[in-house]
Amino acid sequence: MLINCVVYQEGKKLSDIPVEEISRWVERPDCFVWVALRDASDEELATMQREFGLHDLAVEDASHGQQRPKVEEYADQLFVVMHTVELDALDQLRVGEVDVFVGRNFVLSVRNRSRHSLLGVRERAEREPHLLRHGAGFVLYALLDAVVDRYFPIIDLMESELEALEAQIFEPGSARTNVQQLYALKQRIMAVRHTVTPLLEAVAKLWSGRVPAVCEGNREYFRDVYDHLLRIHASLDSLRDTIGTAIQVNLSMVTIEESEITKQLAAWAGIFAAATAFAGIWGMNFEHMPELKWQYGYPLALGTIVLTCVLLYRRFKKVGWL
Amino acid sequence: MLINCVVYQEGKKLSDIPVEEISRWVERPDCFVWVALRDASDEELATMQREFGLHDLAVEDASHGQQRPKVEEYADQLFVVMHTVELDALDQLRVGEVDVFVGRNFVLSVRNRSRHSLLGVRERAEREPHLLRHGAGFVLYALLDAVVDRYFPIIDLMESELEALEAQIFEPGSARTNVQQLYALKQRIMAVRHTVTPLLEAVAKLWSGRVPAVCEGNREYFRDVYDHLLRIHASLDSLRDTIGTAIQVNLSMVTIEESEITKQLAAWAGIFAAATAFAGIWGMNFEHMPELKWQYGYPLALGTIVLTCVLLYRRFKKVGWL
Amino acid sequence: MLINCVVYQEGKKLSDIPVEEISRWVERPDCFVWVALRDASDEELATMQREFGLHDLAVEDASHGQQRPKVEEYADQLFVVMHTVELDALDQLRVGEVDVFVGRNFVLSVRNRSRHSLLGVRERAEREPHLLRHGAGFVLYALLDAVVDRYFPIIDLMESELEALEAQIFEPGSARTNVQQLYALKQRIMAVRHTVTPLLEAVAKLWSGRVPAVCEGNREYFRDVYDHLLRIHASLDSLRDTIGTAIQVNLSMVTIEESEITKQLAAWAGIFAAATAFAGIWGMNFEHMPELKWQYGYPLALGTIVLTCVLLYRRFKKVGWL
Amino acid sequence: MLINCVVYQEGKKLSDIPVEEISRWVERPDCFVWVALRDASDEELATMQREFGLHDLAVEDASHGQQRPKVEEYADQLFVVMHTVELDALDQLRVGEVDVFVGRNFVLSVRNRSRHSLLGVRERAEREPHLLRHGAGFVLYALLDAVVDRYFPIIDLMESELEALEAQIFEPGSARTNVQQLYALKQRIMAVRHTVTPLLEAVAKLWSGRVPAVCEGNREYFRDVYDHLLRIHASLDSLRDTIGTAIQVNLSMVTIEESEITKQLAAWAGIFAAATAFAGIWGMNFEHMPELKWQYGYPLALGTIVLTCVLLYRRFKKVGWL
Amino acid sequence: MLINCVVYQEGKKLSDIPVEEISRWVERPDCFVWVALRDASDEELATMQREFGLHDLAVEDASHGQQRPKVEEYADQLFVVMHTVELDALDQLRVGEVDVFVGRNFVLSVRNRSRHSLLGVRERAEREPHLLRHGAGFVLYALLDAVVDRYFPIIDLMESELEALEAQIFEPGSARTNVQQLYALKQRIMAVRHTVTPLLEAVAKLWSGRVPAVCEGNREYFRDVYDHLLRIHASLDSLRDTIGTAIQVNLSMVTIEESEITKQLAAWAGIFAAATAFAGIWGMNFEHMPELKWQYGYPLALGTIVLTCVLLYRRFKKVGWL
Ligand SMILES: [Mg+2]
Ligand SMILES: [Mg+2]
Ligand SMILES: [Mg+2]
Ligand SMILES: [Mg+2]
Ligand SMILES: [Mg+2]
Ligand SMILES: [Mg+2]
Ligand SMILES: [Mg+2]
Ligand SMILES: [Mg+2]
Ligand SMILES: [Mg+2]
Ligand SMILES: [Mg+2]
Ligand SMILES: [Mg+2]
Ligand SMILES: [Mg+2]
Ligand SMILES: [Mg+2]
Ligand SMILES: [Mg+2]
Ligand SMILES: [Mg+2]
Ligand SMILES: [Mg+2]
Ligand SMILES: [Mg+2]
Ligand SMILES: [Mg+2]
Ligand SMILES: [Mg+2]
Ligand SMILES: [Mg+2]
Ligand SMILES: [Mg+2]
Ligand SMILES: [Mg+2]
Ligand SMILES: [Mg+2]
Ligand SMILES: [Mg+2]
Ligand SMILES: [Mg+2]
Ligand SMILES: [Mg+2]
Ligand SMILES: [Mg+2]
Ligand SMILES: [Mg+2]
Ligand SMILES: [Mg+2]
Ligand SMILES: [Mg+2]
Ligand SMILES: [Mg+2]
Repeated sequence: MLINCVVYQEGKKLSDIPVEEISRWVERPDCFVWVALRDASDEELATMQREFGLHDLAVEDASHGQQRPKVEEYADQLFVVMHTVELDALDQLRVGEVDVFVGRNFVLSVRNRSRHSLLGVRERAEREPHLLRHGAGFVLYALLDAVVDRYFPIIDLMESELEALEAQIFEPGSARTNVQQLYALKQRIMAVRHTVTPLLEAVAKLWSGRVPAVCEGNREYFRDVYDHLLRIHASLDSLRDTIGTAIQVNLSMVTIEESEITKQLAAWAGIFAAATAFAGIWGMNFEHMPELKWQYGYPLALGTIVLTCVLLYRRFKKVGWL
Repeated sequence: MLINCVVYQEGKKLSDIPVEEISRWVERPDCFVWVALRDASDEELATMQREFGLHDLAVEDASHGQQRPKVEEYADQLFVVMHTVELDALDQLRVGEVDVFVGRNFVLSVRNRSRHSLLGVRERAEREPHLLRHGAGFVLYALLDAVVDRYFPIIDLMESELEALEAQIFEPGSARTNVQQLYALKQRIMAVRHTVTPLLEAVAKLWSGRVPAVCEGNREYFRDVYDHLLRIHASLDSLRDTIGTAIQVNLSMVTIEESEITKQLAAWAGIFAAATAFAGIWGMNFEHMPELKWQYGYPLALGTIVLTCVLLYRRFKKVGWL
Repeated sequence: MLINCVVYQEGKKLSDIPVEEISRWVERPDCFVWVALRDASDEELATMQREFGLHDLAVEDASHGQQRPKVEEYADQLFVVMHTVELDALDQLRVGEVDVFVGRNFVLSVRNRSRHSLLGVRERAEREPHLLRHGAGFVLYALLDAVVDRYFPIIDLMESELEALEAQIFEPGSARTNVQQLYALKQRIMAVRHTVTPLLEAVAKLWSGRVPAVCEGNREYFRDVYDHLLRIHASLDSLRDTIGTAIQVNLSMVTIEESEITKQLAAWAGIFAAATAFAGIWGMNFEHMPELKWQYGYPLALGTIVLTCVLLYRRFKKVGWL
Repeated sequence: MLINCVVYQEGKKLSDIPVEEISRWVERPDCFVWVALRDASDEELATMQREFGLHDLAVEDASHGQQRPKVEEYADQLFVVMHTVELDALDQLRVGEVDVFVGRNFVLSVRNRSRHSLLGVRERAEREPHLLRHGAGFVLYALLDAVVDRYFPIIDLMESELEALEAQIFEPGSARTNVQQLYALKQRIMAVRHTVTPLLEAVAKLWSGRVPAVCEGNREYFRDVYDHLLRIHASLDSLRDTIGTAIQVNLSMVTIEESEITKQLAAWAGIFAAATAFAGIWGMNFEHMPELKWQYGYPLALGTIVLTCVLLYRRFKKVGWL
Repeated sequence: MLINCVVYQEGKKLSDIPVEEISRWVERPDCFVWVALRDASDEELATMQREFGLHDLAVEDASHGQQRPKVEEYADQLFVVMHTVELDALDQLRVGEVDVFVGRNFVLSVRNRSRHSLLGVRERAEREPHLLRHGAGFVLYALLDAVVDRYFPIIDLMESELEALEAQIFEPGSARTNVQQLYALKQRIMAVRHTVTPLLEAVAKLWSGRVPAVCEGNREYFRDVYDHLLRIHASLDSLRDTIGTAIQVNLSMVTIEESEITKQLAAWAGIFAAATAFAGIWGMNFEHMPELKWQYGYPLALGTIVLTCVLLYRRFKKVGWL
């Protein structure tokens, strides 16, 4: 679906143009064309390929979707794939895709499976003509920046979740849900990581060493995006590492808890076993058991049993089993 | 076994030719010869070596089989080894091998231990003469692409299996089969990984930096295969990582379950031990045990025992042991 | 908040100057200006940007804070971010930030969220004019050195904590607090690591290979800071590794302790079960149980029970269960 | 001990020569001398050093033995160390060493602590004069190839052992021997790895990038050895990884088995405790226990007890504890 | 404390000289001065700095001690830090430090916190003037070699300790001390590793690629030291890896042992519970229990109980619980 098709000159919007006129404007060296599509059909992509002269393999990737984040050069054109990450209504992570074709004087962005609009990028860019004047490279930067900035709240959320889980781990009785939640969180972290790591590697090609011609004047801006990604990457590394330890620690806590219960079980088993053994002995049917005939035999027996139990109880208390 | 032996000119099939005429056609600069063998015998390989002038070491590798995926240059010829991965009737993973010799104007492919035919590659190539015109390099790309594309359904299957296992882990009582299935799946993942990782490294030599002359005009195509492999590799990394965590989590779940059973055991042992201790005491044979003579001694005793048990039960319920 | 704004000539302080005069002094090739801010407002930063001609992206980073430690070149200016690490009154780790802008003849430092003043750096520098004469590069070194030197006591403290914990691990009964403390310590180590690792990588750019012009004359000094960071980094690696092993060992100790208690439980259960079985048998109500009528039946029975218990006790003692 | 000392010309054996004549033949540019020693004494090495002009440090290494596999250049000479791996009569791994000195027109090999003779290498080489004509570099290749080819059966054996162990892991009752065998196998794998990894790195220097003059004409042959080593290395990686998982899985199986036994213990304890509690209650000595006087009290009581036990049994069966 | 201050010419000792004359001799191009200090005071270092023209930062490092092993170039001088490793009377690892300053024609070594004298190095060097003639670079090699050679016995000792521990792991009953000893050994291994790894990296700079002028003529000697370090490093890697597995295996053995005890506990609990249940039933006080009146009721009862126990015992024996 076409969202926008606009031509700019000197950083200022000239006019919306129909799709078929694109190739005519792209030929003019002083203008640049910025087209935005959403969930593009193969027909729309074919039209764009004709108008902009895009490479078969890049169009194929954009049409299939499910690409790894990357930056590819096709002669003097760039093909950039980034993933968007959003939480849906059920707090499930949804990964979308933004594909961007960049030429000397055009930018074509295709957004797939993502609710967040990129319209804000265009509006902000149109409000700052002195920056938009940098041309197609700057628009690519603006799109990258917008996508990457939306990673931060996701990371923050995962960090808060992990902090909540960390507190829970040391509480008894929630080991089962802890493991489930840690596992689910780890999966989510890994999913974001697979979005960030390849993009980090890809963006490095836009500012360090030889860079594509279209990015040359905006190196510092791409380095800034790279720096954002590096920060996110470090946070993800940290999260992953912490979750690993948390799973291990959770298992330790379960084992410790079981060990404590085994101690209690052993202690109480000992106390009752002693009581039962005494009662059993005095329950034997021997004829000559003098204490059975004593006036105070029974209270004495009860007393002995209780005393033994109390002594055992205190001993177990002392060694920390109870 | 010879499958095909065809000579092409300008991207179009000229004719099937007998094996002995190969060397004569290979000398002509405007044609290229594409031969396909299956489970080739040493004699067939010897004939091919003579006709195409292949290097001893490459022929030896093709004849022995069991090579690691790789790309090797012998002067201006290329020797490429790739593994095919298929599931047999019993859902067991079967690894086959495709060896490809590529020269300036010939391609010789040898398929071993694989049921999937590569005929489709030739058919598709013959239907697109404008691409086949790129020559031997393009045929190599087409073969690589066909082999690599068949990795995807295997990966998808393993991902589905893992998802099914993930659900099972948190269900009680299936720990034993979980471990067995996770172990088996991990082995399968590692087997595919050993097929993909070396091929990834090998294909990189075909598009980045200095590339063999025969690949020069098709860099973008080889980069596309590389990109596929990178995606597969990332999926395998992800699968491996997840399985590691799943094995760990499965162990946690067993330990947690055991811990819960220990709690129940301890609680019920306590309840019955109390009942038994009371019964034991009133079963003693002391002569002077006044309560034994009371009219309502027995119901009172039963009541005491039941009450104790109920109180203990509620207490254990409260602390979560029952 | 402005702390200082001083102009130096030939390594000696010329005078404090008002902020608006900065740009006039910066133009003079024989002087250099050194400004220090604390928790700077956006207005102050805007003024500084105007006076020194700082890059938008660098100022934005300084204004947002929460940057990763780094060294960035903007044309002939440097933007350096370092983290400070302090313990607050509650022994909690607090991470602050020092941002430094360096030009050919100026240094601007901005300190955020840190109690430790950097005034000492200026005082020491003013006392050694022969070093300060090296100019802006030397001031950057002095600031880096001051920040990095404050990492050492933090590392020492964590090493002492870990040593104390190591002793505790092998003591019975403290497993629960051990795990909690090891986890907390690991988190702290990781936090410091995320401060040190990126700074290490950043400082390498100031002495090895091509270095920014402003650092050229002070390579050996930056290498010295690098060497400090390398030592800290090795200590952190060591701490991390040791904590990992300690968590594992702590779990082993719990399992071993539980195993020992299970042995004791089994042994005592066996002893009492034997006693109870004997008592149970002689408590049966058969009419013809001759031993019940013996004169010394009871003491013999008691003796048998005690003897059995003693024999069992010694056997369990011998196999190490008790 | 001297094994052979032969001079070759144009790839053909000229004659056996006495050791003292070596230096005279080495001077002739059209010949090359190939000497083989076994468990050489220091005197023999000193003679060789004199005749061939070997470097002090290389001779010292050959004399001390226990070197790491490596390739070292001393001016225009090469010093190569490889390890041989054999199984002795008791299936214990024995690591031997082959040191090779290579010059422009000589090869000196010293075999230590290895039963496998290298004579076959010479015989095969002498049978193929067109290859031996390549000179000293080709002899080095032949020796490397012979040593590396003997790694394969060792790897195969370890793979078979591991497969046997994998089947055992999921069988109950053999956990103890499993752990011991996995541990022993891991040690063996690591020993072979320490033989293969450094040799892999060393052989890379003989074919990729700048190579020693003596290897120049045989690059493809050294790459072939490298490829063998790479395959072995991948197998070792795979073995190591699998053993790690197997140890983990074995522990899981023990924990699962223990958990199942705990369940059975708990279930049977519950059943017997119930029976004992009933019997205890009817064993109390209260005077007024009407059911004791009933005609069918006893069978009713027995029935109640059995019924309770059966109900409990079925319940435990249902939840999977029995 | 000054140990020696000697001037050499052409590899031969000229004479001991007083410290104040050093700078005069260092000026002479045909001589070189070799000074040895032990636990040097700051005054001694200041004198040396003056006489040899040492760099501030290097002297500061030598004075502070506690440096990481390293090689630093200051213009045409080298500053080398190595660690010595010794076992003290209590078999505790003690890490000392040797700092070496090397110039075109001088060597200054400072030994700290180490009992092992380096005098042997000087004696051996003076006995071999043809080597000592190589100058300052060769002396540096001799010092490095002496320090590194003393690592070997430490490694051997740790390997023997580990072997002893490996045997112990599979013996029952020593898990607790095993863990403690494995932990202590791992700490010692890590300490040595932190001595070896940075030195390995540092020594590489003395022989491979561009090397400092003073080392140029002795590349092969420094490579020999590097090779020693590489071997030590591989042994440490191996030790570390093995200890990791040993800790894991030790935990497995504890779990297995506990599992076996749980089985025994369950089996004996079952046997006694059966006996007690029978006794309990025949201890009930029902009036109409015909078997109680049988002539052979008691022996029959005893027989039943014993038979049940024997049957249970055999069953448990068969399934491997006893
Ligand atoms: Mg990744
Ligand atoms: Mg990564
Ligand atoms: Mg980062
Ligand atoms: Mg990272
Ligand atoms: Mg990181
Ligand atoms: Mg990072
Ligand atoms: Mg455990
Ligand atoms: Mg890999
Ligand atoms: Mg990927
Ligand atoms: Mg990868
Ligand atoms: Mg990956
Ligand atoms: Mg990847
Ligand atoms: Mg465990
Ligand atoms: Mg990091
Ligand atoms: Mg690091
Ligand atoms: Mg370090
Ligand atoms: Mg490090
Ligand atoms: Mg380190
Ligand atoms: Mg380090
Ligand atoms: Mg290794
Ligand atoms: Mg490796
Ligand atoms: Mg390999
Ligand atoms: Mg490998
Ligand atoms: Mg691999
Ligand atoms: Mg490999
Ligand atoms: Mg366990
Ligand atoms: Mg290290
Ligand atoms: Mg290392
Ligand atoms: Mg090594
Ligand atoms: Mg190593
Ligand atoms: Mg190594």
